[in-house]
Amino acid sequence: MQIRPIIGVMGTHEEDPEVIPLAQTLGEEIARRGCILLTGGGPGVMHAASHGASRAGGLVIGILPSERRSPLPGYPNAYVDIPIYTGLLDARNVINAKTPDIIIALKGGAGTLSEIALALKAGTPVICLGAWHDLFPGRIIPVHTVEDAMAVIDRLLS
Amino acid sequence: MQIRPIIGVMGTHEEDPEVIPLAQTLGEEIARRGCILLTGGGPGVMHAASHGASRAGGLVIGILPSERRSPLPGYPNAYVDIPIYTGLLDARNVINAKTPDIIIALKGGAGTLSEIALALKAGTPVICLGAWHDLFPGRIIPVHTVEDAMAVIDRLLS
Amino acid sequence: MQIRPIIGVMGTHEEDPEVIPLAQTLGEEIARRGCILLTGGGPGVMHAASHGASRAGGLVIGILPSERRSPLPGYPNAYVDIPIYTGLLDARNVINAKTPDIIIALKGGAGTLSEIALALKAGTPVICLGAWHDLFPGRIIPVHTVEDAMAVIDRLLS
Amino acid sequence: MQIRPIIGVMGTHEEDPEVIPLAQTLGEEIARRGCILLTGGGPGVMHAASHGASRAGGLVIGILPSERRSPLPGYPNAYVDIPIYTGLLDARNVINAKTPDIIIALKGGAGTLSEIALALKAGTPVICLGAWHDLFPGRIIPVHTVEDAMAVIDRLLS
Repeated sequence: MQIRPIIGVMGTHEEDPEVIPLAQTLGEEIARRGCILLTGGGPGVMHAASHGASRAGGLVIGILPSERRSPLPGYPNAYVDIPIYTGLLDARNVINAKTPDIIIALKGGAGTLSEIALALKAGTPVICLGAWHDLFPGRIIPVHTVEDAMAVIDRLLS
Repeated sequence: MQIRPIIGVMGTHEEDPEVIPLAQTLGEEIARRGCILLTGGGPGVMHAASHGASRAGGLVIGILPSERRSPLPGYPNAYVDIPIYTGLLDARNVINAKTPDIIIALKGGAGTLSEIALALKAGTPVICLGAWHDLFPGRIIPVHTVEDAMAVIDRLLS
Repeated sequence: MQIRPIIGVMGTHEEDPEVIPLAQTLGEEIARRGCILLTGGGPGVMHAASHGASRAGGLVIGILPSERRSPLPGYPNAYVDIPIYTGLLDARNVINAKTPDIIIALKGGAGTLSEIALALKAGTPVICLGAWHDLFPGRIIPVHTVEDAMAVIDRLLS
Repeated sequence: MQIRPIIGVMGTHEEDPEVIPLAQTLGEEIARRGCILLTGGGPGVMHAASHGASRAGGLVIGILPSERRSPLPGYPNAYVDIPIYTGLLDARNVINAKTPDIIIALKGGAGTLSEIALALKAGTPVICLGAWHDLFPGRIIPVHTVEDAMAVIDRLLS
């Protein structure tokens, strides 16, 4: 088996109706391209992207903050195929930032911001979809639609 | 997709002819049961187990100490399907210990010992194959053959 | 000995003349209040704050990304009294964010941003001095001078 | 201030009457030599060593598994001067293993064993006092008394 690209999708753990459909479509598109989806494995954007990828037959990795024996509510979500139990709490965000070939960040809170920052530090390309556009101009890749996000991914992976 | 069990195989990163064939057979047997193999993603036992699992059509996760942009020699090995770049150096051993449903430890050095210890602390069952039998009697599961190791796994997963 | 408050100072590792004097004065003021200074232990803002604290007789902790046997250039800087070798690379930023009672962030790059974000996530109060004021309005505490930063600290610790 | 050596003391978190007095005397002797004591910051051996060091006027660092806002029972113990909140759970053991110039391990469980193993991997000298003598012959330094442990430390630091 050849190593398939891993695309990370980061965003709020809340059920925000503004971004949940975007996350789901992103997950689907990532899976359709034969890429592996990586998220933090929880609710909100993580759940929606995982659902989308799963529905399109893709493989879903969840990088979990907790240990196997002390699961956090909502982790792993129902669409995670490969739960990585880190027991590192917030420090697992570095793995979300470093493992993917590319990450896409949606609207989110401090956790999402930390993942963008850690990804930039690690050299992982960061596509910001509909949010975070004023952050580090020239270093993040701002896009406004899922189509544009996927076009950037296609270009970066080609 | 249902979550498939993850079995970790730990052991020396050296090309030790005493354990390489065991590791390869373990990888094959793990894959044949439809389980996912997890290793530290490098050379020696990690490479051999990954080779075996890959040959049997299995999925192989490598939990790498390094970052994507600063790979260590031999990491990931050629049979890793899903490289998890942690950038945590030795602290990635906690993920090797906490993510699998069960780990099998072969002959190894201080790194392997740390994974056994961290797994015991986390409550992950630890099967020790042909080594480490005097360590924590009653807490590790000592076996002498690959067949016995797989029989223990079959029992624990049933 | 009573536990003394720990104040973190975060900012660029570059020798930026705009912030180096601020960092040095912050270090001095922190030490004069009997607080312990915590930084990432390296160059730039970290060095300047440590220098200031050391000159004022304070205690300086450096949370280092590297291991003792593989030091990174500039880590620990000359004024670190207590070098904490983590070997966690960027993941040590969570310790910078979680250990202090309060952190002060100056102008910086992606590393500093990750520390602000992780501190907000962990509930550590974050004072932003002359930078980052548009980030998470209402969640960070924006100030324009060292005096104002120290006044906030005095208030938070009282 | 010159950097003072940091000596780590590792051992069971239980109140084991066999080792508590040894840990307390070790803490005292470490402080008397002007060294800094580092422990995991909790109960049992960690508490006893910290008590001893504190009584002798020494400085005590505690590397805590938890976050500041979610303290674990017994962490930090009453004699910790510098609580390092990592939020890394068991992964904080790598810091216990990598930060000290030397570690002394007493009787303990899987956590202690992981610290010995990680220290050996990192190249930190490991003195084993009254336990673990059969582990990695030639790599750990076995001693039977506190006096012998301190003599080894004096020699290693000279």
